[in-house]
Amino acid sequence: MTTLETLHAARGAKNALMLADSETKNQALHAMAQALLDQCPAILQANAADLQAAKGQVPDVMLDRLRLTEERVAAMAQGIREVAALPDPVGRLLAEEHCPNGLVLQKVTVPMGVIAIIYESRPNVTSDAVALAVKSGSACVLRGGKEAFQSNNAIARALQRGLVAAGLPEALVSLVQDTSRDSAAQLMKASGLVDLLIPRGGAGLIKACVENATVPCIQTGTGICHIYVDKAADPAMALDILENAKCSRPSVCNAAEVCLVHRDIARDFLPRLHERLVAGRQAQGLAPVQLRLDETAAGIIPGTPAGPEDFDTEFLDYVLAVAVVEDVQAAIRHIEAHSTGHSEAIVTADEAAAAAFAAGVDSAAVYVNASTRFTDGGQFGLGCEMGISTQKLHARGPMGLAELVSYKYIIRGSGQIR
Amino acid sequence: MTTLETLHAARGAKNALMLADSETKNQALHAMAQALLDQCPAILQANAADLQAAKGQVPDVMLDRLRLTEERVAAMAQGIREVAALPDPVGRLLAEEHCPNGLVLQKVTVPMGVIAIIYESRPNVTSDAVALAVKSGSACVLRGGKEAFQSNNAIARALQRGLVAAGLPEALVSLVQDTSRDSAAQLMKASGLVDLLIPRGGAGLIKACVENATVPCIQTGTGICHIYVDKAADPAMALDILENAKCSRPSVCNAAEVCLVHRDIARDFLPRLHERLVAGRQAQGLAPVQLRLDETAAGIIPGTPAGPEDFDTEFLDYVLAVAVVEDVQAAIRHIEAHSTGHSEAIVTADEAAAAAFAAGVDSAAVYVNASTRFTDGGQFGLGCEMGISTQKLHARGPMGLAELVSYKYIIRGSGQIR
Repeated sequence: MTTLETLHAARGAKNALMLADSETKNQALHAMAQALLDQCPAILQANAADLQAAKGQVPDVMLDRLRLTEERVAAMAQGIREVAALPDPVGRLLAEEHCPNGLVLQKVTVPMGVIAIIYESRPNVTSDAVALAVKSGSACVLRGGKEAFQSNNAIARALQRGLVAAGLPEALVSLVQDTSRDSAAQLMKASGLVDLLIPRGGAGLIKACVENATVPCIQTGTGICHIYVDKAADPAMALDILENAKCSRPSVCNAAEVCLVHRDIARDFLPRLHERLVAGRQAQGLAPVQLRLDETAAGIIPGTPAGPEDFDTEFLDYVLAVAVVEDVQAAIRHIEAHSTGHSEAIVTADEAAAAAFAAGVDSAAVYVNASTRFTDGGQFGLGCEMGISTQKLHARGPMGLAELVSYKYIIRGSGQIR
Repeated sequence: MTTLETLHAARGAKNALMLADSETKNQALHAMAQALLDQCPAILQANAADLQAAKGQVPDVMLDRLRLTEERVAAMAQGIREVAALPDPVGRLLAEEHCPNGLVLQKVTVPMGVIAIIYESRPNVTSDAVALAVKSGSACVLRGGKEAFQSNNAIARALQRGLVAAGLPEALVSLVQDTSRDSAAQLMKASGLVDLLIPRGGAGLIKACVENATVPCIQTGTGICHIYVDKAADPAMALDILENAKCSRPSVCNAAEVCLVHRDIARDFLPRLHERLVAGRQAQGLAPVQLRLDETAAGIIPGTPAGPEDFDTEFLDYVLAVAVVEDVQAAIRHIEAHSTGHSEAIVTADEAAAAAFAAGVDSAAVYVNASTRFTDGGQFGLGCEMGISTQKLHARGPMGLAELVSYKYIIRGSGQIR
């Protein structure tokens, strides 16, 4: 099937899911989880072929993200069952109004219809995304990366078997068979066929969607996250938070990329920062952080002088840009100029500075005395996550099931006219 | 100022409003209302110049929409005061979570930042839109139609005087000085400068935004609304609803454009429809409705044979397309294929048919036994309205203050790391 045929098939099938009750959807999800386990050998075989083809073509860290094992497939099945156990986001009564003229107005949540997802290497996204789409009542069209194509296909086929076993049409879930850029562009331009497009990937993919998409789109997952160390910060807390936010998983979007330090404490704090992130980590056999320093910071500690682009780069690596700022307002202005609107933190014992930062920083998640690494659907109590939105329309921050539905008004009358 | 300079000025000023408390915003709104009244002579003079220039260039109905009077200016001022009296949509706590690790997470509503609005002839939109933007804490950049340019400028200047009188920067409200298509295109493409773009106008403007906008955009106000007369309909109720939905104000987006009739009652109902909308109205000296009939309907009553485009046209006039359908499911399928997703109604005494229609029709507002003309912010109890969204992301149906804000998460900790 061409990408357009796939979209039309999903559209033709969507009503079966949009109108399905909670029990039907949950049965389908359990059948899909079971089918993943049943098809595990076929999935691992397809994955082996992907790994074989990718060897030498991509870095080792990518190979690891691509690799499936029996345990990982079992975890995917378990993830689907956990989504089944969550409350149904569809059919929720958001508001009810009894008008003086006798009209009864209800605002209720409804499925989107067809959700398209463009994603990159990790094949587990295939089952995670499908589970969330099915639970929220939408058909989904997946466009994965070419390195994981055979794995994704095997997973999608297993999920389709589950759908069919539960009496639902297999076209509710489909993987686009074209992994060239053309298919991504077609999804972006499929007005009337795609109700929601979610790009999950790097800055290049997000930019392409912003510039080209004519369908409704939610940008996710680019994070230039800042940690501002205020003059009233507990330095030990600041160092713990900085090391955690930078080093616990540098490749993720909620990792910190920039540290801003109040000028009044820079002479004391920066040497401790260097000791903790560079020398200290080296001494422990951990990857040291490469510091990119603005002029003031470079006058205090050793490190690479920062180029202007260093404050606008999502390093996704053991690299941290460091700047000295005049005060909390200067930190807020720096963040407004350079942030992607994902997550930022202040470390301070001063409540006025904390309040100014929380109010003044216009990002999805603003932390006071905590690591930016907590920006995550699971950590936020959503039970799951389709991605982390960095836009302001519809969904901001971690997107759970509630962010994957729309609403409509149903108005019941007895012949009222206006 | 160029359009880009106007946008940068709005961005530079926005924090004064984003961080303003309710009292400051309400004081500004009252000062803006007062300034409109104070500047009424200047506004009427500017309007007279617009009317003079438009005479002979646009239809009389457009001239009427363009015309301002002392009463209309007073009504604009009163509208601003009514917005001031509504609850503040900013700073609302949407959710709060105390996590086991001690983090306290709050989800709170926040302003968008900069809202751009592209609209057409009616100058009162200038003050309506500004009032909603200011109340919701966003700066706004307005791009009105060229026929109303002098009126809009006089209104915007008065509103700016009000802002300044309340101690706020005048750049929070500005009218783009270029009314060519270039300025609209610049607003659509101003990524990073516009947080929300709202086009208010005809299908051409909406289409241009869908195809070209790279900024977040909410499509509003194109309505191909359907009334389905079920076999179990009370025919008198159906006629009342149809005449109201078609004729009470044919130029608005919630007016009906299409009537679908169940085939089992077509022979009885269609002659009554013709009598009511054509002969009956003519006899009363009212504008008769021109019927565009599908083949089956044309075999029963006189009228113009419908071309295929007649079921995909927003007539905004005394024209109604009529088709005979097999049953409620066929009506739902017709609506899915032809509707703009605005408002649709079923007339029926059959609860099963009503439930199937309410569930199966995927539009912003679905009516059972009532006129589509009720789709309106005031009627829905929102107190006001920025437009009627026909999309599914963020806002659907009438957009009030609650739909003009975003949210963010504020997370307070005591050094938590992950």
